[in-house]
Order: sequence, then C-alpha cells, then structure tokens
Amino acid sequence: MEVNSPYQANEYATSISSIKEAWTRINSVIHKTPVMSSETLDLLAGRRLLFKCDCFQKGGAFKFRGASNAIFSLNAEQAAKGVVTHSSGNHAAALALAAKLRGIPAYIVIPKNAPKCKVQNVIRYGGRVIWSEPTLKSRETTAAKVMRETGAVLIHPYNDARIISGQGTLSLELLEQFPTIDTIVAPISGGGLISGVAVAAKSINPAIRVLAAEPMGANDAALSKAAGSIVTLSETNTIADGLRASLGNLTWPIVRDFVDDIMTVEDKEIIDAMRLCYEILKVAVEPSGAIGLAAVLSDSFQKNPAWKDCNHIGIILSGGNVDLGVLWESLGK
Amino acid sequence: MEVNSPYQANEYATSISSIKEAWTRINSVIHKTPVMSSETLDLLAGRRLLFKCDCFQKGGAFKFRGASNAIFSLNAEQAAKGVVTHSSGNHAAALALAAKLRGIPAYIVIPKNAPKCKVQNVIRYGGRVIWSEPTLKSRETTAAKVMRETGAVLIHPYNDARIISGQGTLSLELLEQFPTIDTIVAPISGGGLISGVAVAAKSINPAIRVLAAEPMGANDAALSKAAGSIVTLSETNTIADGLRASLGNLTWPIVRDFVDDIMTVEDKEIIDAMRLCYEILKVAVEPSGAIGLAAVLSDSFQKNPAWKDCNHIGIILSGGNVDLGVLWESLGK
Repeated sequence: MEVNSPYQANEYATSISSIKEAWTRINSVIHKTPVMSSETLDLLAGRRLLFKCDCFQKGGAFKFRGASNAIFSLNAEQAAKGVVTHSSGNHAAALALAAKLRGIPAYIVIPKNAPKCKVQNVIRYGGRVIWSEPTLKSRETTAAKVMRETGAVLIHPYNDARIISGQGTLSLELLEQFPTIDTIVAPISGGGLISGVAVAAKSINPAIRVLAAEPMGANDAALSKAAGSIVTLSETNTIADGLRASLGNLTWPIVRDFVDDIMTVEDKEIIDAMRLCYEILKVAVEPSGAIGLAAVLSDSFQKNPAWKDCNHIGIILSGGNVDLGVLWESLGK
Repeated sequence: MEVNSPYQANEYATSISSIKEAWTRINSVIHKTPVMSSETLDLLAGRRLLFKCDCFQKGGAFKFRGASNAIFSLNAEQAAKGVVTHSSGNHAAALALAAKLRGIPAYIVIPKNAPKCKVQNVIRYGGRVIWSEPTLKSRETTAAKVMRETGAVLIHPYNDARIISGQGTLSLELLEQFPTIDTIVAPISGGGLISGVAVAAKSINPAIRVLAAEPMGANDAALSKAAGSIVTLSETNTIADGLRASLGNLTWPIVRDFVDDIMTVEDKEIIDAMRLCYEILKVAVEPSGAIGLAAVLSDSFQKNPAWKDCNHIGIILSGGNVDLGVLWESLGK
C-alpha cells in the first residue's frame, strides 16, 4: 500500500477536484448533517469519537450524496430520458429522490422478495418500480430492457465515478466541521463510500487514517485486500443487509491504495453498537450504519498498536433505514 | 389569558433575565442540540416543522438544562453538602450528571419498582441511589431524611425557579437557530419545560404561539386550564411515562398566563408519531418526546382555525430515554 504515493489523476475513478466539483453541484440539495459526540462513548472507546450522522441525510443514508451528484451531472438530453438502477436498498430510494428533485423519471428494478419498507421508500420518493425475479441475472436483464426501451441512463450503486465523487463530499463536510480528526472509519460494501471518503480525506491530509469496517459474514473486502485482487463470496451471512455487495473495478484500486485497513466484526458486535447508538446517542441507525462504532470498540482495533494514536476518530453513521416493526408491535400492545 | 400583558417580573417564578443568566451559567456544559427537518414530515403536517432535538442533550433529555442551572447556582457551602431529589426519571439522571460535573454528591431517592434502565442511568452518572417504597409519601419522607442527615439541597424536578429558568434556555437556543419560528410545541407534565420555554419565547416575540401537548390519559393540565385552577388526577394511564406529574404552584401561573393551549392526544397517536421520528427523522425518542409531533399531526390541531397561520413550528423532541429491550431481543435471534 502506498498511502503517500503522489496522486495520479488518471489512475483512479475520482480525485479531490472531482469531489469538490460534486460538492459545489449538490451542496444546495443535500443536508449538512450534524456531528455528534458522547462522553460516555468516548470513555468506552478511550478516544474522542465524532459521529458523522449521515443517517440524517435525505433518504436516510449517505447514498443521496452520490445519487444527487449523478443525477445533476446529466446533460439535459440524458436527463430527459431518466435513470435506471437495480439496487433495492438505500441507493434506489436516494436515486428516486434525486430524480424527483430534478423532475426526471427514475426506473427502479426491484426483486419481488425485497423488504416492504425499502419498496415503500422508493415509492414515497416517486420512483417507478419495475419488478424482477430475485436473482442478479434477472435484475440485470430487466434493467437492460428498461434502458433499451426508455433510453434511461444506468446509475450503478457504487461502481460509478459520479457516485464515488458524491460520497466523497462526506469527508469534505466532516473535515470542515472537525479539522482535528486523525482517523475516519466507514462501512465497506461495494466500496463507493469508502473510496470517495478516502480520496478526499487523504488529499486534504495524507496523515489521516482511513479504516473500513466489514461484517465477518461478508468479508470479501478484507479477503481482497489480503489477496491483492478482488475476491467475491458465493454467499454472505450478516444482519447488515447494506453490506453484502462486492467491490467493483472502479472502487477496488482506491480501496487497495487509499484504505489503511479493513476491520471485520461479528454480527453480535454490530447489534451491540447499534444499541449504543440508540440508547446513548439517541440515533436510530441501521445495522450497516453502526458497524464503524462496532469496529472501534472491538478488541482487534483497541489492541492494535498501529491504531494507538488514533485519538480523534470520525465514525460515519451511514444510514438509518431499518424495519423496526417488532418495536411498534410491542408498544401497541 | 393575557398573552400580551406587560410582563411583571415579580409575578412569576422566572423571567427572561433569569433565563439569560441561566444560559450564561450553563452554556459551556450543555450540548447545543441540532434542529432537524424533513420534507416528508412537512408534507404530512402541511407546515414547516423544525425539530429541536433535545433528546441529544447530555443525559438524553432537556432535563440537564434545568439540573445544571440548579447545580451551578448553588454557593460553595450549599454545593459541598450536595443535592437530593426523589424523581426516578430523566431529572434524576440529569441531576446526577450535573452534580458529577461540579464534583458534589447527588442523592437520588428511587422507588424499589423503578425501571432498571432509569436506575442504570442514575448510577452511570455517579448518583447515590437511596431506595424508597413505591409511594409518593415514602419518596418524600426518604428525601426529607436525606436532607436532615446530609444537609443536601432538595432540587424538585419542575417546581423550582432554577429548574424552570434552565429549561427556558431551550427557547433562546431554538430562536437563535431559527428566528422565523412562529409556534413552539412542547410536552407538558409538571410544567417546568413549557414554563421556561413560554416565558423566554413570549419575551423575545410576544406573537409566538406556545402550545403544550399532553396525553389524554394524564390530561390534568388541560383540565386545569379549563377550570382556572390546578386539577390533579387520582390516576393516570399513558405510555408516556415522563408525562404523569401534576402542575406545581410555580409552574401553574405561567401555564395559565403564557401557554396558548393544551392539546391532548391518544397513546396511539403518540406511538405513531414516535414511529415517524424513528423511521423518517432517524431520531430515537421516548414516547413523551414524540408527543409534540403527535399533537401537530392530530385533527384537533390541523382543523383548528386558530392555528391555521402556524407555519414554522418548532417541535421539541424532549427526550430519548426508553427501554428498547424488545428490539435487541428480536435482533439477537
């Protein structure tokens, strides 16, 4: 890994200038999300923790940054035909919302077995739902069909330069709010968030550590980093439903070169961290959103001498879209 | 009600100058809590809603404002002997935390049947727990005994001028953050919060509407307002465990003269509003904390011609201390 290597603009899918352009483009439509802290959690971690609450972002997740950058990057001709994606998660809702703001159609391919709350989010934001079978092949075929029929532009949830640059605005915002941050911890799935975050943060301050957190049951990024090339898993098993994707050819080189380490945590640690977010911070995060805290509290982080000087840690609470039905049922009794 | 009557400094337990003094006193120890908004909820309400998230306050509730004002108002001799209270809720935790910050003892009288999570909060913040029987009489007798034995100062959860002035700082902060607010909605229980909020807000801008929200199953404030004198209930029945107290002789005159209306809502409306806070705002509020939103979404508010010009509504999310055990049990399965 060559963290301090001179940055080559053409090597990677994004750059600090693309990320700054994205910020200018989307600044008026995104929420500037607050940074929260808790002395109780600082004591637990033995460090100063600064929680960047992007679960408060429009659409309930950081995904709106990339989606709005992609949507507002389109020229008028492209925009008129709309956009299409086959993610059923936070990216789909974010894309629908951003498209609605620009007044263009968003075609969202959703597998028939998708969780109801995710489908509702897409519909709430005006997305046009196209059903597919619950296989990647069917989703891709259906999306291709929509593209042929409508001329809509495909916006991949993470393997897209516009998306990566949009997510990178999170670092610009965070480091403006807390310039003393020496470490940033973010979840990793397909790598869109951590790629934008890492390039922006390291460009501003090469000494900043950028650490990714991943569920043990979907540890393809850690395996990829160890192997030196993209590893994909035939199956994943984790409560963090937002963290099951594999790296793409645009995110992998950035993860390889700019991310200092991938930390894996057990689902139990994710649930415990989620509980701390609710009970101490009063922030309603989804499991994927709590994984950064889980990683920082884990033994493997706490006891690793490489991280003993990580004193001001920015932890990205990435999203808050979770089905809490069991809670409302219990309260309604 | 004489909202626009000239303010007489000696008539009420607090004044704008006391509240400004409180703000100077506590500003460096309290969190400046963020104001959040959601276009989805604005659409639901047909108004601009500005959520003042005091559930993010230290101790998880606005109570820390009043408690820290009371604690830091004590002279050195008083402080050395400590403080005592017989609330088992958010006030107790807030008082313990504020006392810890000043380095003085806080004796917290707690009935034996108090919820475990509330007791844990008190212990976490260093409060000295004194157990009593689960009756008001036993709690008061026990507190009196502690006072005799230790010389500690009793800090009542709401019927105390220092507490009321401290809670009033919430209005100063909110109106500095959003000067265009024309209406403030806050929960009412013993009346400490709404009293401070109303005096501060009406002193800054007499045209601001200050509305209180109360559970139907603990509607003593609404009955008091209608009767023109304090009404107490022999029993209460509501999910909003923080809203069961009755008005005191210091809060009642302010509620009578400065609060424009008391709105009552059903528990079902509280649960629905709480759900919106979690699912849309991603803020983990307790039932009492969500009641302001419940009131603003209720038919009785929406259809009342008196409130049709309430366009920029500050809603106080007052606290977030709630036992979510059922949620963690379900996730751990």
